[in-house]
Amino acid sequence: MEIISGGVTAAQGFLAAGIASGIKKSGRDMAMLYSSVPCRAAGTFTTNIVKAAPVLWDRRIVHEKGIAQACVMNSGIANACTGEEGIRACRQIAGEAGLALGIPSDYVLTASTGVIGRQLPVDIMKKGIRDMVPLLSDSEAAGTAAATAIMTTDTKKKEIAVNLTLGGRKITIGGMSKGAGMIHPKMCTMLAFITTDAAVSQPMLQKALSASVEESFNMISVDGDTSTNDTCILLANGLAGNSEITEEDSDFQAFCEGLDFVTRWLARHMAADGEGATALLEAKVIGAESRAQAKVLAKSIITSNLVKTAIAGHDANWGRVLCAMGYSGASFDPEKVDLYFESAAGKIKIIGDGVDTGYSEEEATKILSEKEITVTADIKMGQESATAWGCDLTHGYISINADYRS
Amino acid sequence: MEIISGGVTAAQGFLAAGIASGIKKSGRDMAMLYSSVPCRAAGTFTTNIVKAAPVLWDRRIVHEKGIAQACVMNSGIANACTGEEGIRACRQIAGEAGLALGIPSDYVLTASTGVIGRQLPVDIMKKGIRDMVPLLSDSEAAGTAAATAIMTTDTKKKEIAVNLTLGGRKITIGGMSKGAGMIHPKMCTMLAFITTDAAVSQPMLQKALSASVEESFNMISVDGDTSTNDTCILLANGLAGNSEITEEDSDFQAFCEGLDFVTRWLARHMAADGEGATALLEAKVIGAESRAQAKVLAKSIITSNLVKTAIAGHDANWGRVLCAMGYSGASFDPEKVDLYFESAAGKIKIIGDGVDTGYSEEEATKILSEKEITVTADIKMGQESATAWGCDLTHGYISINADYRS
Repeated sequence: MEIISGGVTAAQGFLAAGIASGIKKSGRDMAMLYSSVPCRAAGTFTTNIVKAAPVLWDRRIVHEKGIAQACVMNSGIANACTGEEGIRACRQIAGEAGLALGIPSDYVLTASTGVIGRQLPVDIMKKGIRDMVPLLSDSEAAGTAAATAIMTTDTKKKEIAVNLTLGGRKITIGGMSKGAGMIHPKMCTMLAFITTDAAVSQPMLQKALSASVEESFNMISVDGDTSTNDTCILLANGLAGNSEITEEDSDFQAFCEGLDFVTRWLARHMAADGEGATALLEAKVIGAESRAQAKVLAKSIITSNLVKTAIAGHDANWGRVLCAMGYSGASFDPEKVDLYFESAAGKIKIIGDGVDTGYSEEEATKILSEKEITVTADIKMGQESATAWGCDLTHGYISINADYRS
Repeated sequence: MEIISGGVTAAQGFLAAGIASGIKKSGRDMAMLYSSVPCRAAGTFTTNIVKAAPVLWDRRIVHEKGIAQACVMNSGIANACTGEEGIRACRQIAGEAGLALGIPSDYVLTASTGVIGRQLPVDIMKKGIRDMVPLLSDSEAAGTAAATAIMTTDTKKKEIAVNLTLGGRKITIGGMSKGAGMIHPKMCTMLAFITTDAAVSQPMLQKALSASVEESFNMISVDGDTSTNDTCILLANGLAGNSEITEEDSDFQAFCEGLDFVTRWLARHMAADGEGATALLEAKVIGAESRAQAKVLAKSIITSNLVKTAIAGHDANWGRVLCAMGYSGASFDPEKVDLYFESAAGKIKIIGDGVDTGYSEEEATKILSEKEITVTADIKMGQESATAWGCDLTHGYISINADYRS
């Protein structure tokens, strides 16, 4: 596997565009993704009972037919809690895109992110669709235009692509995502799009995506709030010419490995770019009896407001880590826990068998002042482990969210 | 029932003291509560797997014997994650207090709050105990000294007392508590002490307390972090001379009514004085099928960081309320929900049947700029309801917690 430059346009046959249509006061706010041939489509969506209209629209397409060829995305308005009018907007957007692209409207996915409760400006978006079609390009710049158009409070675009070989054929997997706030995915997080030119049957595509999302997007949190719009779409157009993957063979394993790299990379970068974040917080739980136990504990650490504020203050307040593990719902013996803090500045053992090792506070502060911090808890019960990603909780998060709509 | 002035010393036979012993850099940090006769003792404690030493100490006393006569409290150090040495500290503190007060050491409860992982300075505390015994008084001022000595990041002391009549006898229930951070009680919250001169059998006392805590301390959250030290103690010394309550009769109902008032008052004031808070956030869910459903939904609203920051910004960002209900785990139909915002400045219907009513943003902002905000969600499924209390999430919370230990 080789990391290459680019994102959703890196795989053969995928074109993209991103423009400023006028939904937001300024900046790009609409994107389009298009494949020159129909794709097998897999998707995972929010488990929030309150599901945005585009989630309902896409879920039907992915689960009933599993075929798609284009996706229209917008930022600024989430099209959630918008009732019948919201669904009608999806239908009109897909219809306009289908017409402009010459494909069936039920091959067109939609995705939205932004303020909940407002209706989409459908006329503005229809014009935006017509404006984007002639701009569609397989260039890296076009992929980047799309990746920036889906950003809300993100400070950095998130794009990644890899090459790998399946049965002698080079295939590419590329992806983009946006995150920043309302990030506590419970199926997949808010807007991630992954494209590949590999030939994979729809059931195997969905299987690969569902497993991959469990270990990537579902292991991050910015603020504990599971969004109404969480959507992760994986499109495979088969143009790489590999023999189609239809079972769990070595090609499937290789494909999953590439996909896992892409989803983890995107997830990790979403956590690092959480609203107001100054540091990525990685929690590793090792020595667990089961993966499930390790995951619950790791997620509880990165979700705790008190752990997150301690990281913001470069403060080795390890009691908060143990406290967060303690209320997670997973069982363990606090008096057996070893805890380590680690970063580019070094690694330090903070507690051994549940009590303070007498570590140097100065050294700990230095380690916690880096941009990427890893907290490792060894619970000494078995061989399983899990990793979760979050970020610190800062004044920036409050500033961004206390007046998001104005 | 009549609200009277005072707190834990309001009921007959209860004495208290609070001093600055030197555990903290400045201010009161040790308190003592003492009854002139042994009391029936009930208690509820944290469900966090990581339980502080005083929680283990008190739980044994309350559950094995149900009798106590004194309690020694300190702020500054939580005596959590302190292993065997932490338990030994409890034993030494109780021993010293028993000696100084002339009572058995297993009649002495202990309670601690503050930084996790540090050992208590036992010698300083033993001296503090000897200093406090001559200061013990049933005056209101002595109760207040104790109530201020248990504070950490609290900005206001929390004391309340009520009188009521049981079988022709006037009885009193008084209480104090501390809160502010690491507040998301899962059995009872960090340090609440309630005293009464009513005669109540231990099983009925525990029954009354457990039920009361469910509807008060277990319905508040400041930051979603369930503490290692959560403790609520109820002591009844019987000095009021009422005939002992031993069954669920009308006297028990009257006692519970008074107790519920005290626990809710304390819980509500703890939420309002959450770290950095500028507003109390009350969430009422009505029209629910069951109490359990209503409670899960109400707690999810007041726990959401995004709802809390919107309140901080006086922003009627109602989509976040619906989103938090949606990921709570309780089922409901988002398209049937009516939502109201209410405060001293008025009441406004924000959404009807899941969609925007076209309310005035100006009016909503005015309502959300008050010190106490109520969000009411009518889910139109039945007759049950529940209320939960939280607070806004502000820059103050970050400042307090990013560098708590220094």
